[in-house]
Amino acid sequence: MDIGTFELLQTSSQCAARRGRMHTARGVIQTPVFMPVGTQGSVKTIANEELRVMGAEIILGNSYHLYLRPGTDIIEGGGGIQKFCGWNGPMLTDSGGFQIFSLATLRRLNDDGVEFQSHIDGSKHFFTPEKCMDVQVKIGADIIMCFDECAPYPCDYGYASRSMRLSLAWARRCRESFEKIRRADNPQQLFGIIQGSVYQDLRRESAEKMMEIGFPGYALGGLSVGEPKDELIAMLDATVKLLPAEKPHYLMGVGTPEDIWEAVERGIDMFDCVLPTRNGRNGQALTSTGKVNVKNAEYKADFGPLDPACDCPTCQGYSRAYLNHLFRAQELLVFRLLSLHNLHFMIKLLHIIRKSIESNKFLEEKKQFLSNYQTKG
Amino acid sequence: MDIGTFELLQTSSQCAARRGRMHTARGVIQTPVFMPVGTQGSVKTIANEELRVMGAEIILGNSYHLYLRPGTDIIEGGGGIQKFCGWNGPMLTDSGGFQIFSLATLRRLNDDGVEFQSHIDGSKHFFTPEKCMDVQVKIGADIIMCFDECAPYPCDYGYASRSMRLSLAWARRCRESFEKIRRADNPQQLFGIIQGSVYQDLRRESAEKMMEIGFPGYALGGLSVGEPKDELIAMLDATVKLLPAEKPHYLMGVGTPEDIWEAVERGIDMFDCVLPTRNGRNGQALTSTGKVNVKNAEYKADFGPLDPACDCPTCQGYSRAYLNHLFRAQELLVFRLLSLHNLHFMIKLLHIIRKSIESNKFLEEKKQFLSNYQTKG
Repeated sequence: MDIGTFELLQTSSQCAARRGRMHTARGVIQTPVFMPVGTQGSVKTIANEELRVMGAEIILGNSYHLYLRPGTDIIEGGGGIQKFCGWNGPMLTDSGGFQIFSLATLRRLNDDGVEFQSHIDGSKHFFTPEKCMDVQVKIGADIIMCFDECAPYPCDYGYASRSMRLSLAWARRCRESFEKIRRADNPQQLFGIIQGSVYQDLRRESAEKMMEIGFPGYALGGLSVGEPKDELIAMLDATVKLLPAEKPHYLMGVGTPEDIWEAVERGIDMFDCVLPTRNGRNGQALTSTGKVNVKNAEYKADFGPLDPACDCPTCQGYSRAYLNHLFRAQELLVFRLLSLHNLHFMIKLLHIIRKSIESNKFLEEKKQFLSNYQTKG
Repeated sequence: MDIGTFELLQTSSQCAARRGRMHTARGVIQTPVFMPVGTQGSVKTIANEELRVMGAEIILGNSYHLYLRPGTDIIEGGGGIQKFCGWNGPMLTDSGGFQIFSLATLRRLNDDGVEFQSHIDGSKHFFTPEKCMDVQVKIGADIIMCFDECAPYPCDYGYASRSMRLSLAWARRCRESFEKIRRADNPQQLFGIIQGSVYQDLRRESAEKMMEIGFPGYALGGLSVGEPKDELIAMLDATVKLLPAEKPHYLMGVGTPEDIWEAVERGIDMFDCVLPTRNGRNGQALTSTGKVNVKNAEYKADFGPLDPACDCPTCQGYSRAYLNHLFRAQELLVFRLLSLHNLHFMIKLLHIIRKSIESNKFLEEKKQFLSNYQTKG
């Protein structure tokens, strides 16, 4: 298969859930897929070998962070982000729009781009769609994202509308610029990002105009940013069906196991979220019967595994009591063991979801998973 | 072989270096051995499986720390420290004397024992030799240590002399108490600790009296606490030859690769040190050509491995430039990757040392190692 091809293998007869395969220069990605997040070029606390063993197919990096540190020259010198990180598999970089609007200070936005100060050293930078493409081509991820403004939540209709149109104009410039500078020796795919906050007509307009520009994949941006869950579901219901079936659909920044079931049901193929690693560092484990916070006193003398149903190295090698002790003692090992378990859990969840689509039992498996998952509340 | 047996396999014809084997209930330990330190029941940032793969034979825990947190009841409930940690191999606990005299506050020492306040929550505790034995029997390590006063450096002759005699009296009480409470279902060995600061006559007196009490192994304590290297060497020269050849000789808290060669040459069999993990967390790697500090700007675009001569997962999977980036970004992964490399380096060093004794080329191998190791200065 050609690099860049998305194969739609199967669509559920029960709902819009899809089973697919994405072809990249560095391997094939089975969808629906959960992509572990390695913002600064490292999935926090986790080694590449562990990601390979658990079955991670693609990991994320962030353009804003990587541009500021170590810088595109170092990453290019190291042979591109995949080789620089020692991962050597498929990677995706976010454009950095979200980070510029949430992390950087002194942002000055105009139609041309955005000036901002680095959160690291206060240095000033100016990102335009063209600059962002230059950065992402140099970083060299297999999938790269358009530069956009990620509108905050809540956000009034007027703001959301202007912001969506700015992101559209920038998407056009990203596409044009990318076509000029893309490199023959490193085939990359540029995805468009649909915005429009929680307004269905804006989402529809964004989707239609994005498809006019034409991208090999479409993302929904600006969701899971604080809106109620029914707003997220409403946006999925309204938007995903507008997207071309033969292209991958990516819901950015999502999410929880529950959200992933809902989104796959509505036709989403790709997910990324910091939840497994961030929750891990906070002591929280995702288990087949719900969340377990190993800091809690009830686990102090609980010598069973985190999740008896799990076959990850953490559950095979360590008890809740030991993890509780490590957390209380603030031993770095615990952040790693919990992150490893949580990532395993998410990768395995997507495996279950893919199998459920193949066997055309998506809704039954969803129901069963969620009923077990809510056991502990 | 009976549990507790030390087999002296070979003694170098070139020097006092010895090749041996210690038999414990949880496995055989090849000596000379380097024991990774897991003060709170975790070799910082490192998983048990990694310790097994690198060939670690025994790891350390600390009675003072483990008594305060998670507490002996939790460890006993978990089936003893080896099982509680998920390590399941041989372990050694230090008595906690060193920590009480360096970490705890408001210490009040009398002939009976020492009252101290926990460094964690300020709670008051009273440790006697009997209490310390009770704690270490409950923790359940394969090798346990007498409770002693670790004299500071520098320390005048009068203080060193009184302190050494107090530690002797305590060693007698430890032995008596241990004989009463030792458990048939968990064979432990109690080692004596020779003190006397940097005074040869005190070290000699301590060694002679300790041997009168009689232990299955003898440690040198209160060294590598700030004294000049020639004082350490002088103490080894004066003391190790007094110890029974058929018992293991343990130099506590040592050390650097250079110190280990010197000490093995003088008849030491066992070492422990936090250096590999502590230096790792500070960005410093031990390599075959000397120390490398990955934080240094010279490694920013150095895409080679930490140590081209090393086959550890860090050197096989990651570049100096990537490690430099991780360190600057304070990504937790780097503490782990450097600690892993440094522990590999030490375990491999002891493997080289054992082979050099077997082939009776200890002095040649020592010379070659040190000449390479000092390449970078």
